[in-house]
Amino acid sequence: MVKKVVLGIDIGGTYTKIGLVTKKGGILDKVVFKTEAQKPFSNFMGKLKVEVETLVLRSASDIQILHIGVGAPNANPNTGNIENPPNLKWGLATPIKKIMEQVFELPVVLANDANAAALGEMLYGAAQGMKNFVALTLGTGLGSGIIVNGQLLIGEHGAAGELGHVNVDRQGRNCNCGLQGCLETYASVTGIKRTVFELMATMREASPLRSLSFDEMTGTAISNAAINGDAIALKAFEMTGEILGSKMADTVAHLDPEAFILSGGLSKAGKILLNPIKNGMEHHLFNVYKDKVKVLLSTATSSDAVLGPAALAWLEFKNTKTA
Amino acid sequence: MVKKVVLGIDIGGTYTKIGLVTKKGGILDKVVFKTEAQKPFSNFMGKLKVEVETLVLRSASDIQILHIGVGAPNANPNTGNIENPPNLKWGLATPIKKIMEQVFELPVVLANDANAAALGEMLYGAAQGMKNFVALTLGTGLGSGIIVNGQLLIGEHGAAGELGHVNVDRQGRNCNCGLQGCLETYASVTGIKRTVFELMATMREASPLRSLSFDEMTGTAISNAAINGDAIALKAFEMTGEILGSKMADTVAHLDPEAFILSGGLSKAGKILLNPIKNGMEHHLFNVYKDKVKVLLSTATSSDAVLGPAALAWLEFKNTKTA
Repeated sequence: MVKKVVLGIDIGGTYTKIGLVTKKGGILDKVVFKTEAQKPFSNFMGKLKVEVETLVLRSASDIQILHIGVGAPNANPNTGNIENPPNLKWGLATPIKKIMEQVFELPVVLANDANAAALGEMLYGAAQGMKNFVALTLGTGLGSGIIVNGQLLIGEHGAAGELGHVNVDRQGRNCNCGLQGCLETYASVTGIKRTVFELMATMREASPLRSLSFDEMTGTAISNAAINGDAIALKAFEMTGEILGSKMADTVAHLDPEAFILSGGLSKAGKILLNPIKNGMEHHLFNVYKDKVKVLLSTATSSDAVLGPAALAWLEFKNTKTA
Repeated sequence: MVKKVVLGIDIGGTYTKIGLVTKKGGILDKVVFKTEAQKPFSNFMGKLKVEVETLVLRSASDIQILHIGVGAPNANPNTGNIENPPNLKWGLATPIKKIMEQVFELPVVLANDANAAALGEMLYGAAQGMKNFVALTLGTGLGSGIIVNGQLLIGEHGAAGELGHVNVDRQGRNCNCGLQGCLETYASVTGIKRTVFELMATMREASPLRSLSFDEMTGTAISNAAINGDAIALKAFEMTGEILGSKMADTVAHLDPEAFILSGGLSKAGKILLNPIKNGMEHHLFNVYKDKVKVLLSTATSSDAVLGPAALAWLEFKNTKTA
């Protein structure tokens, strides 16, 4: 019997992950390869083609790929382009949907990586059964995907859900985007690292973090220090959670969601991050929302990044079939 | 020939407006009466019944009311209740949908007043043809209605779009809701009045506004002073616009809308308010949104408040017919 699957492709600044995924979210097989983001897009497409062919050839059973779903930074579903992302040196606009459809002779659906992740949580993860929620990816930056009425919020220009650039402090930290005080300069792996360096200046406590340079410091080092009771690391998580929670209260005043789903490196700290987030959010919530909004850790996208693009592909396949 | 209409009911803290409205937004007839919000809800319903009967009886042509649409403060479409609004002393939860359906023997659809206003703009006003926009009502408070993909954003608990309670300053002005620094304490008629009083303390310029007490000061007095070049009033509009614009930039980072539509007392100042709003918004926008989002004055809801609830009724009538 032929197994029907979609091909999920998650393009990151360092690695690209591809996988063959069944409707129920089973990953039949997958491959991870280096994106080589500094080389031209044609180099990437060449590698991708080889890897996809390998996946299909080595498949134990007969498979039929119904649809391809692609999650990538700065991907615009309205244009089908990847638009000048800081981590991929592919230029102002890469018509990735069009090119992939020509190469693979299959329909391709494209979304911003964090938006695809939200769909992954809805179909296969912590947001199963939910119709209104916000997925936050706390990695190098802060990505977000908003689900409203069971559908991805795309926006008029294909760019809804950039919560990393909501403002925390007009006189605050410089952001890569040119603005000052964007949320992702506080609530991300990079953000908490900046906070740790502020705290090493203001606090006096000894800490293993003091032996690391800015370049050496990682999110994992900060999480481990916090788990071991380090005062600076714990304070950094407390401040990060409070700031993120207070901004999530503003997001609730927009969207009135059922839940936030957190993924990405920073979320691996678990309750050390969740507790100050919940406190920060509840403290600043408008009264009609109090005690109504859940804050959960992701399950699907944290287990495998291809589940986001795969969910995107399955939803699009269903839409085109019924249309 | 029988004319098919809906009955639009806009319930305000002071006045209730009702009107018979055709599909194209023509108002056949209307009545305004005092809400008497301090008396029990049964008193209001008694008056409403008399006024509706009067409207129907005095109608020149035969009319058929297809649906009733109600816009009211703190109205929850999920429950059909008006839930403890500060300006209506009707208690914690008034089951207005259920009661009206019994009294009028017609289907009733309920929405928050600012949400209904957004639908009015979409069907009959400045947002005709738009699918993604945000309507802001700058009156005593700041109300908002969000349209996504041509539909009202309701949220999980029926309470999406409370942008009046997005935070400007955690150490800022006390809000009626118990929080500090909510947007509506700055960007509303009451908000600009508070700003004028701050400015009269910090600035030295003479101003006709200095002859008015806090209780006497109105939005109209401030607008008129600004139109006449008063330095304090102009500075107040500049500050109000800058604050509102900067928060609208955060809203754009959530929703990526085509436009904001402004209505309410404060919006009557026109360009004196619009220019600093646009500057404030553009200055703080994340780069992918720059020069893409319009800021417009409302046309429908500013001309007649019943057009909001009437649009709500027509949309619901269409939905129930096709369902």
